[in-house]
Amino acid sequence: MNQQNLKLCSEIIDDKYVKIASNSLNAKEKLFKLLLSQRQLPEEGFDDLTIEYLLNIFATMDTNNFVNKVGVGERESRIFSALVQKRNYYMGHGIGRSGDLIASQPKAAGSSLIAKLTKHLAKDALKLSNYQINELLIVPVATGMAISLCLLALKSLKPQAKYVLWLRIDQKTCLKCIQTANLIPIVIDTVIQDHVITTNLDMLIQKINEIGPDNIACVLSTTSCFAPRIPDNIGEIAKICKQFQIYHVVNNAYGIQCNKIANSINLGLAQGTVSLIVSSTDKNFMVPVGGALIYGNDKKLIKQISELYPGRASAAPILDLFITFLSMGKSGYLQLQKERVENYAYFKEKLQIMTQKISEQILNTPKNSISIGISLQNLKIDQNNSEEKNQITKLGAILYSKKVMGSRVITNKKNKVVCGIEFKNYGSHCDNYFTPYITVACAIGLTKQEIDTFVQEFEKAYTQNT
Amino acid sequence: MNQQNLKLCSEIIDDKYVKIASNSLNAKEKLFKLLLSQRQLPEEGFDDLTIEYLLNIFATMDTNNFVNKVGVGERESRIFSALVQKRNYYMGHGIGRSGDLIASQPKAAGSSLIAKLTKHLAKDALKLSNYQINELLIVPVATGMAISLCLLALKSLKPQAKYVLWLRIDQKTCLKCIQTANLIPIVIDTVIQDHVITTNLDMLIQKINEIGPDNIACVLSTTSCFAPRIPDNIGEIAKICKQFQIYHVVNNAYGIQCNKIANSINLGLAQGTVSLIVSSTDKNFMVPVGGALIYGNDKKLIKQISELYPGRASAAPILDLFITFLSMGKSGYLQLQKERVENYAYFKEKLQIMTQKISEQILNTPKNSISIGISLQNLKIDQNNSEEKNQITKLGAILYSKKVMGSRVITNKKNKVVCGIEFKNYGSHCDNYFTPYITVACAIGLTKQEIDTFVQEFEKAYTQNT
Amino acid sequence: MNQQNLKLCSEIIDDKYVKIASNSLNAKEKLFKLLLSQRQLPEEGFDDLTIEYLLNIFATMDTNNFVNKVGVGERESRIFSALVQKRNYYMGHGIGRSGDLIASQPKAAGSSLIAKLTKHLAKDALKLSNYQINELLIVPVATGMAISLCLLALKSLKPQAKYVLWLRIDQKTCLKCIQTANLIPIVIDTVIQDHVITTNLDMLIQKINEIGPDNIACVLSTTSCFAPRIPDNIGEIAKICKQFQIYHVVNNAYGIQCNKIANSINLGLAQGTVSLIVSSTDKNFMVPVGGALIYGNDKKLIKQISELYPGRASAAPILDLFITFLSMGKSGYLQLQKERVENYAYFKEKLQIMTQKISEQILNTPKNSISIGISLQNLKIDQNNSEEKNQITKLGAILYSKKVMGSRVITNKKNKVVCGIEFKNYGSHCDNYFTPYITVACAIGLTKQEIDTFVQEFEKAYTQNT
Amino acid sequence: MNQQNLKLCSEIIDDKYVKIASNSLNAKEKLFKLLLSQRQLPEEGFDDLTIEYLLNIFATMDTNNFVNKVGVGERESRIFSALVQKRNYYMGHGIGRSGDLIASQPKAAGSSLIAKLTKHLAKDALKLSNYQINELLIVPVATGMAISLCLLALKSLKPQAKYVLWLRIDQKTCLKCIQTANLIPIVIDTVIQDHVITTNLDMLIQKINEIGPDNIACVLSTTSCFAPRIPDNIGEIAKICKQFQIYHVVNNAYGIQCNKIANSINLGLAQGTVSLIVSSTDKNFMVPVGGALIYGNDKKLIKQISELYPGRASAAPILDLFITFLSMGKSGYLQLQKERVENYAYFKEKLQIMTQKISEQILNTPKNSISIGISLQNLKIDQNNSEEKNQITKLGAILYSKKVMGSRVITNKKNKVVCGIEFKNYGSHCDNYFTPYITVACAIGLTKQEIDTFVQEFEKAYTQNT
Repeated sequence: MNQQNLKLCSEIIDDKYVKIASNSLNAKEKLFKLLLSQRQLPEEGFDDLTIEYLLNIFATMDTNNFVNKVGVGERESRIFSALVQKRNYYMGHGIGRSGDLIASQPKAAGSSLIAKLTKHLAKDALKLSNYQINELLIVPVATGMAISLCLLALKSLKPQAKYVLWLRIDQKTCLKCIQTANLIPIVIDTVIQDHVITTNLDMLIQKINEIGPDNIACVLSTTSCFAPRIPDNIGEIAKICKQFQIYHVVNNAYGIQCNKIANSINLGLAQGTVSLIVSSTDKNFMVPVGGALIYGNDKKLIKQISELYPGRASAAPILDLFITFLSMGKSGYLQLQKERVENYAYFKEKLQIMTQKISEQILNTPKNSISIGISLQNLKIDQNNSEEKNQITKLGAILYSKKVMGSRVITNKKNKVVCGIEFKNYGSHCDNYFTPYITVACAIGLTKQEIDTFVQEFEKAYTQNT
Repeated sequence: MNQQNLKLCSEIIDDKYVKIASNSLNAKEKLFKLLLSQRQLPEEGFDDLTIEYLLNIFATMDTNNFVNKVGVGERESRIFSALVQKRNYYMGHGIGRSGDLIASQPKAAGSSLIAKLTKHLAKDALKLSNYQINELLIVPVATGMAISLCLLALKSLKPQAKYVLWLRIDQKTCLKCIQTANLIPIVIDTVIQDHVITTNLDMLIQKINEIGPDNIACVLSTTSCFAPRIPDNIGEIAKICKQFQIYHVVNNAYGIQCNKIANSINLGLAQGTVSLIVSSTDKNFMVPVGGALIYGNDKKLIKQISELYPGRASAAPILDLFITFLSMGKSGYLQLQKERVENYAYFKEKLQIMTQKISEQILNTPKNSISIGISLQNLKIDQNNSEEKNQITKLGAILYSKKVMGSRVITNKKNKVVCGIEFKNYGSHCDNYFTPYITVACAIGLTKQEIDTFVQEFEKAYTQNT
Repeated sequence: MNQQNLKLCSEIIDDKYVKIASNSLNAKEKLFKLLLSQRQLPEEGFDDLTIEYLLNIFATMDTNNFVNKVGVGERESRIFSALVQKRNYYMGHGIGRSGDLIASQPKAAGSSLIAKLTKHLAKDALKLSNYQINELLIVPVATGMAISLCLLALKSLKPQAKYVLWLRIDQKTCLKCIQTANLIPIVIDTVIQDHVITTNLDMLIQKINEIGPDNIACVLSTTSCFAPRIPDNIGEIAKICKQFQIYHVVNNAYGIQCNKIANSINLGLAQGTVSLIVSSTDKNFMVPVGGALIYGNDKKLIKQISELYPGRASAAPILDLFITFLSMGKSGYLQLQKERVENYAYFKEKLQIMTQKISEQILNTPKNSISIGISLQNLKIDQNNSEEKNQITKLGAILYSKKVMGSRVITNKKNKVVCGIEFKNYGSHCDNYFTPYITVACAIGLTKQEIDTFVQEFEKAYTQNT
Repeated sequence: MNQQNLKLCSEIIDDKYVKIASNSLNAKEKLFKLLLSQRQLPEEGFDDLTIEYLLNIFATMDTNNFVNKVGVGERESRIFSALVQKRNYYMGHGIGRSGDLIASQPKAAGSSLIAKLTKHLAKDALKLSNYQINELLIVPVATGMAISLCLLALKSLKPQAKYVLWLRIDQKTCLKCIQTANLIPIVIDTVIQDHVITTNLDMLIQKINEIGPDNIACVLSTTSCFAPRIPDNIGEIAKICKQFQIYHVVNNAYGIQCNKIANSINLGLAQGTVSLIVSSTDKNFMVPVGGALIYGNDKKLIKQISELYPGRASAAPILDLFITFLSMGKSGYLQLQKERVENYAYFKEKLQIMTQKISEQILNTPKNSISIGISLQNLKIDQNNSEEKNQITKLGAILYSKKVMGSRVITNKKNKVVCGIEFKNYGSHCDNYFTPYITVACAIGLTKQEIDTFVQEFEKAYTQNT
């Protein structure tokens, strides 16, 4: 509300009240000024009114909301449903243009500002999480497709290269994103060290030599993974990639929440080659599925991906992220990360006590500070593989029926063909592991109450089962 | 967004786009300027974004939304539930102060502006509906309680007067609002003229003389009513009230939508005494139940009612009305009124054809241009009053089961004690009427489709029944 | 979603998933069952989805949302604006009927259920706060008007009684609600005992004798008040009222949050006459202004008030309360009360330290466990009453400019005519107090951070001023 | 609400009211039953309450909304911001799994149902628009990226093929989506026939022979385009593709709204090869940018694309579409299409009259029934290309300043390199056109008022300029 209108307000209610009220309006403008000039997470999160107020301003800046506008194009962001309009805060033009995913749109200044600002906020969040990177792109596709985009870009830069050296991790998407880009994965199997499943650096070097660096589009490593798999040794891989001048893409799906991974990636960036890092927005920032960050230090390369994207895209994942960053603020974001670290220690402690009671053990994988594995050595798997007699499968089923979501039981006995490649013991990240186990993750947003209930339900289900 | 912030936007996206966008923001400021300066319904209704944008500005002006505010009072509008916050657009201080229902609140400049503006908009709406009045109060209570407030105010001005002369209309609330004010109703029965049930002016004069003007708090007349009752003859009643110097309150619950009633009231205002007129907000302006307008030309008297109200009150009915007025605009409001008049003619025409087919008739009450009565002469009412054999009751039940809402079947045979007074044939507004009948109303917002379906379902139910 | 439809879902997605999902739907039904059968605050608060789901069910039960309904009445709850519709969760029929404020509405089963359930939940909340009452009415008007309704009801039961004996408390609304009911207030002045301002029981008895019990509509006492005024001695007043057979209304505006007041009222109910108690919904349950509870043990009397209310009323205050009760749950409600008690102790402790530094003192009023007074003995009030030189007024202004809301500075020097009665030193609840002071309240929802900031800002403002 | 709970309701309010209310709840179940069993657009659109009710049911079926659930996975759809939660209707799991974009998610039965149903509704919408196809996939990416996905899939099926034969249309995205897939575009220039710019079938055949069918990944044609370009001759192209056994992708971005295009595509499908057709959701169904449909008759091929997509994806575009389809219903959808056809005739008529006045002409391109070109022969373009003196550029600027959005001025004088290819007169779809012109589109949702204003503003701007 401008000065003139505030003056009109003073003719309606007491000028004294208008004065204080205008201070409040000015205070919001100051918050917006900080946001627009510093482009960082606000110190304290905005309240919902402030966020909606800002979104309304931005929506008003989009042409589809102009009073008396005449739209004679084929895309004027006319929205049929009032519910759809409201849930999109009256914005509809999406993001990007034919030239560039992050280009401003002439018809949508407000949406464009949101897109640009969210990028800055995401960069700031990464900085707060100790990532030493200087360029970032938010893509409105999830991690898998984002990696495919990276691979497509690298392929276009190195058209003759057909192979991606892929450090085995048994999540189907990780493999599929190579296939989507019409590249051929070469599996680098893991090695087992005591309880730990980790990167086979020797085999990596051997395969590079075998295939020839010129034929390799990139190495694809992974940091966030289920124990007993631990994050790939990014530092060493990066050095190898640098040595052979090979691109290196890091699948850091949900690793932003973990400082150890940040350090490992920073090491890689500093001492070797880390071309592109990809992270999920939903797993790290508590938004709905739908977005990913692509980041690193190679500004030119990231720009290339941005320019590669053909046409416009949904603004939804970015809008969710924008609202969330404003709502969290710096203090909220750091608090969540702090709580996660505390919860991880708490979870381990509780599991330690419980596993002793049932004569099982926590798998010893300290380098994985998100996921925890618990051995299931005493549970019997029926020889004839009959599911009904399989105590381990039953355990999973009981937990599921108790509304325990996200734990994974690994029985270590399944071979499977994925994307045309046969894997031994698919799901366990290695050909052979000494015990069946169950994994749980201590992810951002998990509560102590959930930990307590899990430990309790697990013990009950386990005991009931033996 | 102020100039400084817009400039910052230009550093983020193309200055050219910011320029046009700022035109849009300015266009909104101009809309707000018109609203704040003219205080009339906008020519064209605002879109929802503009309304929410304005509400967010007003909410920001309320102290409970100040950033870093310290609330050490007992009422700081802290709202527990996010859903409640959102549905109240982050406002919680209500309206009014101890001194006056329409006083501005120091803690709630935004809410106060809404309350004041809505009053102006309601005055404008009345003007558009041809009401020649110059003062108005919106009360966050429905018609019944609003009339009680009027009566309490009149009683305080004339403490010795104990009676209200009430022109019979068989709606319980109309009588109860007298009782609530601790006054005693004197029933002035209606007269029947052909099909029409109307005001008994002779009896009114007689009763005034009988009781004595000094003992009469006021005459309470009614304009909006179910046919065959027609609106009271406000012009003549007003003249009588003027002659005897008696206050005159008009229950105009849903009459704003009808020009004929406006004319009748204007006549009363011009030539006689019409002290206070009361109308429902929900029935006239398509908002949820909860508010009423008290209006007239006696500014002092209306101010008295406003000052009579003790303490604060819910802002909800006013907020609903504010949003609705902005959304309708002048053109929308007039269009709705026009459609109602067209629908009334259409409804009558359709009923004419249908009633001929079934050998019934439309009751001839042209002065009631909202409600229509249809005779039910050929349907049988069982002598023993057994409901099951009663064709008329059955008709009502069939219609209800067909989702026909709001039609009323009057069988003309029930006596009833209401508020301690015994009425003959309660529900029919008179002691005896020549036929049972059913009434329907052509109210604002009714659709042609509903009319068609009603006529069809009625004919079917009637035929099925005989 | 019924069984048949769930089966259809199984033809679209995996039956296994539908099964678990249907467990979740059943779990909601179980929550609703508990709510509908026990009619108490749920142990744990509902999440927002569950609340909105339930509201949608209730909305579907209202006739205005029937598919293909035909509305030919004058009030069909047609809602013009989509925003208004959404913010009212598609309900519009309000509450009540002509006969009774809490009567179910044939056209609005869902709205009626909400009204009835909210009443039960409010009763449960009072029980959780230790109130030993067995009847309650929620009125969609704030405390002041609610007291007026009580007085109107009592007046109708005792038509000859013209007076209300009112124990002085300097809040205008408390006095105005007597006037609104066209009754005459008789002021019973307070007595000062050391720091405490309290009930003058002797004068109360004397006045009863003077005026005569038959002429007294009721005694109106107050429990929640600003220090150094303490809650009226309800126990003793109730005994006196019982002795003289006089109605007794307790203004317990924001006292539900305080156990001491509950005990005092219970004592009154058990040993004497407490006819009606009135409390604000916004001040006790963190909802927007607009509702009040009228409660006690005289079921018949409370029914009378309910039946006195003429016509329908806004459902908004009740809907806000319903959502809030569901959202809080029992655990949330008790937690808020516990925090308030802790905050009160914390606030006092902080103030103790600070007042010593500036040589002022906390007024010693332990019986007021919500409001705290702090002496301002060392600040100078200019003899000529020039505001600019008045250090105390300045203090208030500085605090206000620092966004401190709700503190009240009492300079003890103003006479004022309120509702026709002249009061000495209006605002201080007594004719003469030994020191100017400032009051703050430790109300439900106050945060420790606000306390800290207040203490800090107060000290700064005080020091700056001397 | 199940029977048991409805019975409990009957203990709270009158059983009679509960009975009717339960009819309404049953009526909703019946609507849902129709939706789940027929999987078609409902005859009449659902009201917003019904839509939100259904969404709440679906949300309750997702595990993140289970009461007391314990989430120990890395992705549990925890949502930080209440605003984000609400705008996503409490759903967060997105769509798809690693294996398949349309696979059901064990953690999200509700979201999965929405995804599946929306697919069926989209198929029904296509059927209503006369498309004779039997398989469809909704992808949560816009048209450009959707085409890239198609090309990637085709490339994977024909790894040796490197070229896409692309029928020139001067929209950058159309070309870029080839590049994104790491394929090489071969431009097939247009031919001019009188006013019309159209497909050069001869050159297409010649290039196929030149490059060799085995090296061609596909032909990429376009149907929706700006006049004087007309839709590609899909029938003939399809025949050629069939003859040479080449895949054929049709970019039908906004052609669903036009029956002529449907016929042309049906012809192609029937008589030749149309492998995949891609359309935008926002341009055809009035939702925000973000989704596309990929459809055709080759079920296996479409399944392949679905399985190609790596990992999950945003559900937002699908949710918008689901809500919109339910809200439109069949009648609303057909009505919008009918209005568009009427508007097209109206627009042309108005332009006819106006162009005669200013001695310009409508370009004669009857086969383009969405876009219209108007010659600008009399406006001068400065020889020195100085923008300020260029009347045509000025015309565009004036229109823009009048809030006319979406009209395009083509001056026919710009060469441009796009994706590494140099185009003569880029923007005009051909190397040389006889006149500069301006294009407008008569798209779905355009209003008569916008047409009138455009014609008026255009004439004013044109006249002012000459």
